[in-house]
Amino acid sequence: MFLFNNWYVAAWADEVTTRPLARRLLDLPVVLYRTASGRAVALEDRCPHRAVSLSQGMVDGELLRCIYHGMEFDCSGACVKVPGQPGIPDGARVRNYPLVERDALLWIWMGEPCRADPAVIEPWPYHVDPEHWGWKSTTYLIRANYELIHDNLLDLSHLAYVHQRTVGGAAPEIHFAAKVKTEKSERGVVVTRWLLDSPPPPTYAKNVRFKGHVDRWQEVTFRPGFCNIYSGAVDVGQGAFEGNRSGGFQNRNLNAITPESATTTHYFWSGANGYRVGEPGITEAHFDELARTFLEDKEVLEDQQRRLADDPQRPWVNIHGDLAGIYARRIVERLRNEERENGWV
Amino acid sequence: MFLFNNWYVAAWADEVTTRPLARRLLDLPVVLYRTASGRAVALEDRCPHRAVSLSQGMVDGELLRCIYHGMEFDCSGACVKVPGQPGIPDGARVRNYPLVERDALLWIWMGEPCRADPAVIEPWPYHVDPEHWGWKSTTYLIRANYELIHDNLLDLSHLAYVHQRTVGGAAPEIHFAAKVKTEKSERGVVVTRWLLDSPPPPTYAKNVRFKGHVDRWQEVTFRPGFCNIYSGAVDVGQGAFEGNRSGGFQNRNLNAITPESATTTHYFWSGANGYRVGEPGITEAHFDELARTFLEDKEVLEDQQRRLADDPQRPWVNIHGDLAGIYARRIVERLRNEERENGWV
Amino acid sequence: MFLFNNWYVAAWADEVTTRPLARRLLDLPVVLYRTASGRAVALEDRCPHRAVSLSQGMVDGELLRCIYHGMEFDCSGACVKVPGQPGIPDGARVRNYPLVERDALLWIWMGEPCRADPAVIEPWPYHVDPEHWGWKSTTYLIRANYELIHDNLLDLSHLAYVHQRTVGGAAPEIHFAAKVKTEKSERGVVVTRWLLDSPPPPTYAKNVRFKGHVDRWQEVTFRPGFCNIYSGAVDVGQGAFEGNRSGGFQNRNLNAITPESATTTHYFWSGANGYRVGEPGITEAHFDELARTFLEDKEVLEDQQRRLADDPQRPWVNIHGDLAGIYARRIVERLRNEERENGWV
Repeated sequence: MFLFNNWYVAAWADEVTTRPLARRLLDLPVVLYRTASGRAVALEDRCPHRAVSLSQGMVDGELLRCIYHGMEFDCSGACVKVPGQPGIPDGARVRNYPLVERDALLWIWMGEPCRADPAVIEPWPYHVDPEHWGWKSTTYLIRANYELIHDNLLDLSHLAYVHQRTVGGAAPEIHFAAKVKTEKSERGVVVTRWLLDSPPPPTYAKNVRFKGHVDRWQEVTFRPGFCNIYSGAVDVGQGAFEGNRSGGFQNRNLNAITPESATTTHYFWSGANGYRVGEPGITEAHFDELARTFLEDKEVLEDQQRRLADDPQRPWVNIHGDLAGIYARRIVERLRNEERENGWV
Repeated sequence: MFLFNNWYVAAWADEVTTRPLARRLLDLPVVLYRTASGRAVALEDRCPHRAVSLSQGMVDGELLRCIYHGMEFDCSGACVKVPGQPGIPDGARVRNYPLVERDALLWIWMGEPCRADPAVIEPWPYHVDPEHWGWKSTTYLIRANYELIHDNLLDLSHLAYVHQRTVGGAAPEIHFAAKVKTEKSERGVVVTRWLLDSPPPPTYAKNVRFKGHVDRWQEVTFRPGFCNIYSGAVDVGQGAFEGNRSGGFQNRNLNAITPESATTTHYFWSGANGYRVGEPGITEAHFDELARTFLEDKEVLEDQQRRLADDPQRPWVNIHGDLAGIYARRIVERLRNEERENGWV
Repeated sequence: MFLFNNWYVAAWADEVTTRPLARRLLDLPVVLYRTASGRAVALEDRCPHRAVSLSQGMVDGELLRCIYHGMEFDCSGACVKVPGQPGIPDGARVRNYPLVERDALLWIWMGEPCRADPAVIEPWPYHVDPEHWGWKSTTYLIRANYELIHDNLLDLSHLAYVHQRTVGGAAPEIHFAAKVKTEKSERGVVVTRWLLDSPPPPTYAKNVRFKGHVDRWQEVTFRPGFCNIYSGAVDVGQGAFEGNRSGGFQNRNLNAITPESATTTHYFWSGANGYRVGEPGITEAHFDELARTFLEDKEVLEDQQRRLADDPQRPWVNIHGDLAGIYARRIVERLRNEERENGWV
């Protein structure tokens, strides 16, 4: 069901403090906390003694103490103290999950620890470059399987229908006239859509003064659990398609898709604006528009999940627009099969 | 579990507009809508592409468009347009369910289409004869199996206990002194109850001036999913039992029992008054009394369903009053078995 | 899952009136009521006719009448009347459960009736001795398996962590320095804890004037479904440990643990104060403190149940403090096995 050997966003960095946070990830209970020295830690959220959540307990220095009988655990998950007795019983430890703090995000690895290589974590420089990018973020719990969210982000033709009143804007004819390129690699898919010489959608026009029609693009870079969406628009005739994308509307949209369970998904997202930077009202307005848009998706995705649950085995009919989504599903399936063959799950 | 080759009420005619309506019937998702030309249509409520509910979409002329990627379906359930590509993929269709609009009701047929004969739909002239009948209607969702509702309507001796404060009125002794006749046919049951020379129940007396005691009747005409209840009362000594039922209290009560799932049922009902016609206050008062009565039934039926769920296989003890209900259960069982033998379900 | 041959508290005596009360016990539906003559009765809460809850019906003299078709049952559970017919059908009876009213409690026996011996019911004289004991009670529904509550009450070292702000009071070091004695018998466990020469917890100090440090005890007397907790404190040096416990703080805490289902438990408890008796404010204050304390337990227990449900088969790590709880689990397991071998469940 899930891919384990993969970096997932577990939380926004500022969500995790010395007050432990319980979060279900890949259908496993995880406790996230920060020690007194500021280190962010992820452990299995179940005391080995009598199964109480460690997230009900409290941080004491570098240790996490269980609320029930006071057993204390270090950052590796090892129990280091059992009040009322001298020794530590065999097996008194919980799993530790590698956790990396970067770009205002906490990335977790829930697969084979020896494969956890922080070098392959997606960088997100737009969160840490206030001179060029304003940004704002939130998390939605989507009551749908994570692969439905992959599908959704990999076929943006749905903007013509689902988001007519938000970021869609243009008439369906314009959306379906887009120049679309779909490229796959071993672990990812990239989709590029260009709407040349088209009217700017209301959202863009509201915040950026265009002369008239624009050249507009969306670049979706996918790997399991993650979509980087770079979209923008500049005045027509400036040569954007040929490479000059300076000026105009510039949007960096992070989409981190972390399964909570088979039918629910944490959807961490942020919008970074690369125009009128330093005007907080613009960052807010940009975020509000994305927030409305993604709530439209949420409604469709949750309806889809309910319908699928009625008859999960029933085959689907595919259409042309599914190409990138099908690539993504094949990548996830191949990687899951590899894990299974390796005996990991 | 369900009988498919049967006409069921799917909705009140005025519930179905160009804004699609989602309704679960026989545990299947159905979308009901009206095209621009006014035709009422029932289709399977699941897009063959990626399973989104078509009821989330919108009507455009004679077509229904999916909210997600804009696929369009005609009234037969065939996909006639896939935006962004020239052809229509094989299998891009949804089931169409025969739907008949009659007497302010929409009747659906969810079994073998070739057997859908509108001629056998129960007529309900009381909905379309304002000169002789005032009426008002509503729908309750009863959290109980549909056959429990059949049972309920086929043994009206429960009025003595469940409805003591509403339509029951008379003391148990009077109810159990009723002359009851139970007749069965191949697909139906008719129960007739007469309470001769009895005090009129408060509901009747409130709206009709009787001289004293009345002769009172209830005629329940059942077929699966449907109960026609004709009840009334006239002054004693007028020869009602012998055939002269004119004057007095006259009530035509439609009961359409359409399974939503194995444990929940749409209960569409209306009350038509055949006395003091043309006085809206009387129709309201008549409806209010029935509404209270049926809410008393709802409470009992839902309790019964919960108890049955505890131990569904446990045998029942039968009593004399169960005769008509047992006939009804045998009819439903025989018809379901026939469907199964024919390979329909 | 449950032990049947055991007396359980079914209700507080004053909860049961001529208006029938539905309560699920050992995952079976039970109706509790009082007849016109005042006798408290427990019957299976399911009419043998069509499974409606008898608790929806009403008491008429010494009989209980079903709401639906008026069938009447006597206190033994036998149907004695079926309206509309002369005889009583075979099998028209419900189970009667022995019920004993004592010390403001109603005790039920849901196992083999021939084994129900009222002589083994725990006496609770503190409920009926207003001269020496003030008391107040309530019931919590704990969303956890009953054996987790046994565990909880049999290892009071958790006071050091869960109840730091209520009855715990003293620092963990003091709690873990307690002199603890654990004794088991065939059907029970007794744990005695003494905290000698320790500071009185705030709750005690608030209501009782101590000179300084106290000798403090907790005596937990367990049998399945029941914990008698006697706790108290007197001024240090008075010889309490040697046997002179007069004066100071005296608390008799009844804990009746009756499974509702495998994952939910009725927790009936009362607190009786044996100091400043006759001052209602003191009884209230004592109760309020216990109520806060047990709500802290409720939170931990319900978290524990949720975590266990994630992975119920996973083994536990044991620590020294578990001794009494493990004894209790072995007793329950042995008694359940005996019932199974005897063919009772």
